[in-house]
Amino acid sequence: MPIICKAMTRTSLDHHNCSFARTVDIIGDRWSLMILRDAFYGVRRFSEFKRRLGVTQGILSSRLAQMVERGLLDKHLLDDTSSREEYRLTASGRAMFPIVVAIMQWGDDHIHSTDGPPIRLFDKGSQQVLDALTVCVGGEPLALQNVGFEPGPNASSATISEFEKMARKAL
Amino acid sequence: MPIICKAMTRTSLDHHNCSFARTVDIIGDRWSLMILRDAFYGVRRFSEFKRRLGVTQGILSSRLAQMVERGLLDKHLLDDTSSREEYRLTASGRAMFPIVVAIMQWGDDHIHSTDGPPIRLFDKGSQQVLDALTVCVGGEPLALQNVGFEPGPNASSATISEFEKMARKAL
Repeated sequence: MPIICKAMTRTSLDHHNCSFARTVDIIGDRWSLMILRDAFYGVRRFSEFKRRLGVTQGILSSRLAQMVERGLLDKHLLDDTSSREEYRLTASGRAMFPIVVAIMQWGDDHIHSTDGPPIRLFDKGSQQVLDALTVCVGGEPLALQNVGFEPGPNASSATISEFEKMARKAL
Repeated sequence: MPIICKAMTRTSLDHHNCSFARTVDIIGDRWSLMILRDAFYGVRRFSEFKRRLGVTQGILSSRLAQMVERGLLDKHLLDDTSSREEYRLTASGRAMFPIVVAIMQWGDDHIHSTDGPPIRLFDKGSQQVLDALTVCVGGEPLALQNVGFEPGPNASSATISEFEKMARKAL
C-alpha cells in the first residue's frame, strides 16, 4: 500500500569540497555497495545481480545506470543479435577494491569475530588470507591519535574556514 | 508538498551471511557515512553535525541513535545539570578508520586527481601524508586478478551453494 512521505529526492553531496563526500555521493547507498561487492565476485548479468541481491528491478536498473554513468561499470553487449548485456568493472571501479575489503574486514572483526568469516578472501598463489588493511605512513602503522587532518591543495575557502573553527575548538 | 511513494521501509541486510552486507546494513547510507567522517574529524555535538552536514534534525537524530545502538558511537552527558550531549567514537567505531580512508583516497585519486586533495591526512609526527591503502598478502601488494573468494568457516549452506554456482559459471 502506498504511504505518504515528505521527501524522496536524495540530497546530492557532489558540490562538497571533499573527496569522501563526493565518493559517498557515488556509492553511499546499500544497493550500490552490494552491486560493487558482487561485481568483484564476478557477477556481470542483470538477472544474476537481481537474483543474488533480491532487489527490485527498478532499483537495480537505476543503480546500475548510475554506476555506468559515474564510470564504475561498463555495459557490454554479449553479441550483436541479442540485447544481452554484461556489466564489468572499469579501472575506476576496480580501484574501489580497498573500500570493499575494508568494509568486509570490519564485519569479520566486529560481527563474525567469534565464529569466523562467512567468506574468505585469499591469494590464489600462496592461499594466504589477505592482510588486514592498516593505515600506515612510510610503511609503518599509524595510531589514530597521530593522524592529522588539514586543508589540502584543493581546499576551498569554506573548507579552510571550517578547519580553523575545529582547530579553535580543540584548543 | 508530500508525495506518494511505494516503499519507505529500508530493506535490512542483517540476515545476510556476509560481513560486507552486515556492515553495509550499519553504515551503508550517505548520512551515516558522513557522520562517521565528521566523528573522525573530532565533531561530537549534535548541533555541530547538523550545521556541518546540512542534514535535517530528524534524519540526524535517527542516524545518531542507530549508530549508538550499533555500538559505533557512545552518547555522553557533558555535565549533570544540563542535557548537553556528546557523541564519541567507540573502539568499534574507531576501527572503521580504514573504511573512511579508503573512501577518501579513492576520491582523491579519481575525482580530485588533477587539482590535489581538498583535505590532507598526515602523520602529526613526521608530517608525511598517509600511505595509499593497498590490498596485500604477507606485506606484498596483491593484484586483483590474484584474489580468490571462497566460503569461510562461518559460511551457511546457502553461501556455499552460491559460490558453487559462481565457480561453475567461471569454468
